[in-house]
Amino acid sequence: MSTPHVIALDAMGGDRAPEIVVAGANAARVRHPDTQFRLFGKPEKLEKLLRRFPKLDAVSEIVPAEMVIDPDMKPSQALRKGAGSSMRMAIDDVKAGNAAGIVSAGNTGALMAMAKLALRTLPGVHRPAIASMFPTQRGESVMLDLGANIDCDADNLVQFAVMGAAFARSVQGVRRPSVGLLNVGSEETKGHEEIRRAADILRTTELPLEFYGFVEGNDITEGTVDVVVADGFSGNIALKTAEGTASMYTGFLRATFRRSVLSKLGYWMAKPALIALKNRVDPRRYNGGMFLGLNGVAVKSHGGTDAMGYANAIGFAVDMLTQGFNERVIRDVEQLAQDSGVPAGVAAQ
Amino acid sequence: MSTPHVIALDAMGGDRAPEIVVAGANAARVRHPDTQFRLFGKPEKLEKLLRRFPKLDAVSEIVPAEMVIDPDMKPSQALRKGAGSSMRMAIDDVKAGNAAGIVSAGNTGALMAMAKLALRTLPGVHRPAIASMFPTQRGESVMLDLGANIDCDADNLVQFAVMGAAFARSVQGVRRPSVGLLNVGSEETKGHEEIRRAADILRTTELPLEFYGFVEGNDITEGTVDVVVADGFSGNIALKTAEGTASMYTGFLRATFRRSVLSKLGYWMAKPALIALKNRVDPRRYNGGMFLGLNGVAVKSHGGTDAMGYANAIGFAVDMLTQGFNERVIRDVEQLAQDSGVPAGVAAQ
Repeated sequence: MSTPHVIALDAMGGDRAPEIVVAGANAARVRHPDTQFRLFGKPEKLEKLLRRFPKLDAVSEIVPAEMVIDPDMKPSQALRKGAGSSMRMAIDDVKAGNAAGIVSAGNTGALMAMAKLALRTLPGVHRPAIASMFPTQRGESVMLDLGANIDCDADNLVQFAVMGAAFARSVQGVRRPSVGLLNVGSEETKGHEEIRRAADILRTTELPLEFYGFVEGNDITEGTVDVVVADGFSGNIALKTAEGTASMYTGFLRATFRRSVLSKLGYWMAKPALIALKNRVDPRRYNGGMFLGLNGVAVKSHGGTDAMGYANAIGFAVDMLTQGFNERVIRDVEQLAQDSGVPAGVAAQ
Repeated sequence: MSTPHVIALDAMGGDRAPEIVVAGANAARVRHPDTQFRLFGKPEKLEKLLRRFPKLDAVSEIVPAEMVIDPDMKPSQALRKGAGSSMRMAIDDVKAGNAAGIVSAGNTGALMAMAKLALRTLPGVHRPAIASMFPTQRGESVMLDLGANIDCDADNLVQFAVMGAAFARSVQGVRRPSVGLLNVGSEETKGHEEIRRAADILRTTELPLEFYGFVEGNDITEGTVDVVVADGFSGNIALKTAEGTASMYTGFLRATFRRSVLSKLGYWMAKPALIALKNRVDPRRYNGGMFLGLNGVAVKSHGGTDAMGYANAIGFAVDMLTQGFNERVIRDVEQLAQDSGVPAGVAAQ
């Protein structure tokens, strides 16, 4: 690929677009000085915003796109009517080789559907998955699939494990990542047939990953493994349950410190420590749903994030590109197929 | 049933049995003065412990049981070899009509398998489910199934909804409980076929419940609905993910207050408020996995709980009995079958 440092941005996608997209790109530029941007959206708006950031302006190109994909549009509609939208044009820019990756804070289902259609999957990969990083008691882990695939068979889960491990190795720099399959118990007999069959395959794999076995919901935040693998249904529910619980705790804590004059005073004394805690679990740090397994890099930003969160989503795309994530997935999926004696791309059906 | 106030206790089940079982029974006795207990376990140990609580002793009977079900024993093994165990004998005591309910802090899988076999399901109920209460931003809700049924079809999910609503009505006193199906999105097209079919059935039911539609993981702690219905696989993962996230927050918060002299001082000033927060989310308050749909009341206590937690598990059993939970389930399941034109007990297969 001749454009490793060019990122296409769906500048119109998200609750606070295009403002936070441009401000986020500027923050990402500071951290990743070699990156160039192609911003898809309404030229007048984008030109005006770029004027505030001359250094970003110098490495950015605006590509006019008049239409915006609606947040409520169904994936099937987006596929039919999405041509000319900022999202679709940014994806097609990666397909055309003008950009190496795309970041969008727009409609997740539409982004996945259009990215799958336009970019297709990597050789040997049956289905792309959505991955995200999250804080744990021990550090940070990655989990997938978070909702792209509702029903998954054993081969899907195994490929998710391989892609998640490739992410931990290339982007996070974990030499031999530990991988767990999300289940309702740790014993080998637990769960449905497909997850047990996936465990059997992973137990015998020669790939550079440490298969831990089954993990349970509490293992996610305990950081028991570097990579948590789930079908898209339970993975999505786990992710959102964790987000909801975190937000309940934050709310309760805020109310707690307002209870009395003494507790208010206590808050002020502990404030620097509490801010450090807030930073530790700041969702903006982990903002970025990485679409793994596509022939190109695509990252979904949370729709309601701010410039700092958006910059982190761009950062994940840049890291995947500079650390050769996709090249590693191609090699590992190929090796997986050789291990099992079935050529890559045939194992699924 | 002639013994509504007699609870059989598996006095040997759990990490800290029989000590916390006896202490827990004593605490429950204070709150539910009409309750009598039948304690299954080693007589010498239990006699000695009961001597500390004369008032409990006066309403308790010890039934000798020499064997204890191992925490790691598989359900199938427990079914074959469990005869003579404190758990099995306590369950059989309900079957024999000597007790109306059983509480155990032992092996969950063994308890469910033996309770299902000995007590059987209520008329019309296809499969029992495990339910639990939990704190939300708005109050308290109930969720099921939490792991008894890995694969669930639409009819199972609908019956879980009916049983969960019956619990909210009878035990929690919610007049017309709102019920949500746990899914990966709120749109009607989301999720797999069985969950969508369950939603179709619930949308047209005449039962005294308010079908909200699909809820997502974050809705659990937001308290969007009174009853969250899930298959046992994703329900178990959601529950344990929430527990893990809560425990991570508690750990982070503890570390935060130890960071500096000032933050330590802040902790002392805010301590009463922080203790109130701790009480608000105290897992002991919500200790009790209620087995719904059995012909008899069975409640699973957390294995590592203390006397207060165990007393709450007993309290749930007492409430289910005194509020006529099972009678309501029988009526509602019968009405559900009439609504759909299929006699109860035939709808599943």
